[in-house]
Amino acid sequence: MLFMLNVRYAPQPQLGDEEAQALRRRHDEHVARLARQETLLGIWRIAGAQANYSLWQADSAEALHEVLSALPLFPHLQVDVTPLAQHPLGGHCRLSA
Amino acid sequence: MLFMLNVRYAPQPQLGDEEAQALRRRHDEHVARLARQETLLGIWRIAGAQANYSLWQADSAEALHEVLSALPLFPHLQVDVTPLAQHPLGGHCRLSA
Amino acid sequence: MLFMLNVRYAPQPQLGDEEAQALRRRHDEHVARLARQETLLGIWRIAGAQANYSLWQADSAEALHEVLSALPLFPHLQVDVTPLAQHPLGGHCRLSA
Amino acid sequence: MLFMLNVRYAPQPQLGDEEAQALRRRHDEHVARLARQETLLGIWRIAGAQANYSLWQADSAEALHEVLSALPLFPHLQVDVTPLAQHPLGGHCRLSA
Amino acid sequence: MLFMLNVRYAPQPQLGDEEAQALRRRHDEHVARLARQETLLGIWRIAGAQANYSLWQADSAEALHEVLSALPLFPHLQVDVTPLAQHPLGGHCRLSA
Amino acid sequence: MLFMLNVRYAPQPQLGDEEAQALRRRHDEHVARLARQETLLGIWRIAGAQANYSLWQADSAEALHEVLSALPLFPHLQVDVTPLAQHPLGGHCRLSA
Amino acid sequence: MLFMLNVRYAPQPQLGDEEAQALRRRHDEHVARLARQETLLGIWRIAGAQANYSLWQADSAEALHEVLSALPLFPHLQVDVTPLAQHPLGGHCRLSA
Amino acid sequence: MLFMLNVRYAPQPQLGDEEAQALRRRHDEHVARLARQETLLGIWRIAGAQANYSLWQADSAEALHEVLSALPLFPHLQVDVTPLAQHPLGGHCRLSA
Amino acid sequence: MLFMLNVRYAPQPQLGDEEAQALRRRHDEHVARLARQETLLGIWRIAGAQANYSLWQADSAEALHEVLSALPLFPHLQVDVTPLAQHPLGGHCRLSA
Amino acid sequence: MLFMLNVRYAPQPQLGDEEAQALRRRHDEHVARLARQETLLGIWRIAGAQANYSLWQADSAEALHEVLSALPLFPHLQVDVTPLAQHPLGGHCRLSA
Repeated sequence: MLFMLNVRYAPQPQLGDEEAQALRRRHDEHVARLARQETLLGIWRIAGAQANYSLWQADSAEALHEVLSALPLFPHLQVDVTPLAQHPLGGHCRLSA
Repeated sequence: MLFMLNVRYAPQPQLGDEEAQALRRRHDEHVARLARQETLLGIWRIAGAQANYSLWQADSAEALHEVLSALPLFPHLQVDVTPLAQHPLGGHCRLSA
Repeated sequence: MLFMLNVRYAPQPQLGDEEAQALRRRHDEHVARLARQETLLGIWRIAGAQANYSLWQADSAEALHEVLSALPLFPHLQVDVTPLAQHPLGGHCRLSA
Repeated sequence: MLFMLNVRYAPQPQLGDEEAQALRRRHDEHVARLARQETLLGIWRIAGAQANYSLWQADSAEALHEVLSALPLFPHLQVDVTPLAQHPLGGHCRLSA
Repeated sequence: MLFMLNVRYAPQPQLGDEEAQALRRRHDEHVARLARQETLLGIWRIAGAQANYSLWQADSAEALHEVLSALPLFPHLQVDVTPLAQHPLGGHCRLSA
Repeated sequence: MLFMLNVRYAPQPQLGDEEAQALRRRHDEHVARLARQETLLGIWRIAGAQANYSLWQADSAEALHEVLSALPLFPHLQVDVTPLAQHPLGGHCRLSA
Repeated sequence: MLFMLNVRYAPQPQLGDEEAQALRRRHDEHVARLARQETLLGIWRIAGAQANYSLWQADSAEALHEVLSALPLFPHLQVDVTPLAQHPLGGHCRLSA
Repeated sequence: MLFMLNVRYAPQPQLGDEEAQALRRRHDEHVARLARQETLLGIWRIAGAQANYSLWQADSAEALHEVLSALPLFPHLQVDVTPLAQHPLGGHCRLSA
Repeated sequence: MLFMLNVRYAPQPQLGDEEAQALRRRHDEHVARLARQETLLGIWRIAGAQANYSLWQADSAEALHEVLSALPLFPHLQVDVTPLAQHPLGGHCRLSA
Repeated sequence: MLFMLNVRYAPQPQLGDEEAQALRRRHDEHVARLARQETLLGIWRIAGAQANYSLWQADSAEALHEVLSALPLFPHLQVDVTPLAQHPLGGHCRLSA
């Protein structure tokens, strides 16, 4: 099952710069693993913003939530999750996911 | 260059049912061609809505606008275009686009 | 998998009263069947509005979209779909779904 | 009488991590008791967010407010309360509440 | 139990002037009866708008919805219902309801 | 002249707990006096929130602003003021104000 | 007492061009009279829009609503009314109203 | 040329009470001078809020911005500027500005 | 003086296709003249929408409003006008306007 | 390729005054260089606000994001990026970009 996420970085006021950088490093390694496991299928930076659109694959919203809430930066992210269905024209696309 | 589109179907009040169906058929054939040409890279239905997220590839916003404004249903669509940049973690993803 | 839906009745301008009533009757029968099949798990009227919160169960957003788009009143509904995960305190509730 | 709540966790800036965890523990025990007393009938995590939809039963909005304002995390929650009425199709649902 | 309503008049496009006036007359008689029965406790026009704030009393949201959905103008009204609880300072007020 | 107020408690970040409680005590005594003088005619808690709807009587918006800006908690309140006119059906209501 | 109004022209869909022009003529004469009576104290066009900011004087919101609801174009206007109080610096201004 | 401003006081979190009061005194003197020079033509308090509507006169938006950005409280204000044109009925008003 | 406009095409429901095309032709000729007179300094299509950002030059908002309200498509446009001031870094730009 | 940016200055709460001024100086020099390289084509202050509209030229959203994220004030800016296409009337404008 696929989900489109709109993710904005919204650091909590008390987060210091060093802690932020350390979290970011662990976060990026963590996300790279999720990408290699094909939980994260695609991720695109929104130009001009600390934000992305990303396409995730999970057995259920349950499984997705477990993955997201384990992200090192989770308390500093605002996430909107849109559940997706197959589009009738999706089969014609290179990225049929 | 990549663009994420959020597209909602918003038929104008005077559009009759038959005309809508005829437009839809031509629209779908047109979009399928764009998919085969890899202008449309991916398209996903938003569950519960007459709407989609779709990922488009074009040389410029110029070229993208030309493609979109030629869609048979264009006057009946509401489209938000988000220009995308490469995400540092995108290279780890199956759908690197 | 569970989804919370917020559904508002938003009839298109050209829908006549009689057609609306006929659609409504077919819609209600259709929804009652979905309830008996436990696709629709619960539905609650929002006081003062032609709207409801409803809890749906489906194997995927795919399956949910198929069910929703087949509803007789689908073109006259505005639907927001929220994918749900188990809440740690859900197990204490009578309606654990 | 039933109420649908949309609850988001929005900690006040001065809340420290340790205090937050202690409040959370007391809060969860408190909520579990409310669930066993059938004041809280159902609770579902919104995927990707520190938020839930929850279904509450109380004799009145008066009684509901008393329950909510006694929650250990109440000052750190944003709560929207929607009063519910029976839906004509509710009787067909497993979770008739 | 008390509810504060914000009610806006939003006539559907097909409603003719004469029908609107006839509905309005029946509506006003109907509402006057609800006022004399103390279902409607108070109603105040929002200056400059076809809208009101009104204070309603009902045994439950269930009962309130039944009353509202029977109003002759119900399909032409947009209604927001806020469930109310006793305010600690309410007892000092002339209109303690 | 009557005004409907929607008042939300929005403490400024630097307000400490003790100061908040001291302000609250003075605020409540102050508001109780305004109620006994029939400046505040009615006040109702919005269920689940630190907020109220309240009905105020003043000779003018001028006089109302003077009253509100003298409230001990005024810098920590968000207030929307709606000026009211007599509703044609108001005379049938118990709370004719 | 003074009120600032934000007024947008929002003709109902069934209003024909001729009827609109006739209403407009009567409306303008009516408003000019209100200006000469110093009920309307000032009116300024919002550049680029069929909208204005206007400053009105009335004994009460009651009186203001009576004036506004008698405007020939009233059913085709969207009006936001902001009640005003004297500003401490108002006395230094040429337009002290 | 005329501009309508909607100005809200939104102090930045680090602004202390004493500094705020000192700024306010200087700000008020500064604004009074602008009023006597007929740059500020009128100012009205929004009842219940730390906000105003104010009418400004300047040769251009350029000149207006210079005036506004020199206000002692400028970093603590949220300002919406609406450029105004003469209204056909303005000539009938006492405050023709 | 410069203004940035955000202009969206929002045809009124009763506008027929032929009339729309005729208006569009006259509108485009009219706008081209305004461009040659350097009233319209620049215009850019918003990709994917029937909308533009455009930069206008006029002696005042008065003069701008006169120009805009004479556009053949004016009743079918939604226009937001932002008054501009010189930016300190503008002098380094090729399009200093 | 062209982009219209709406940029608001939104300093993070922990940013001190001195650091802000130092960042601002470096930021302005940096932006001036981008203007001389014709990456930034035009920039206009929004009157009354710490905000601008600016027109940028880049080979892609990719290249634009690289430029923007290297701005010294980037973490303290809120940026909306609108991708632009040529407008049919653009060729008549002095600022054809």
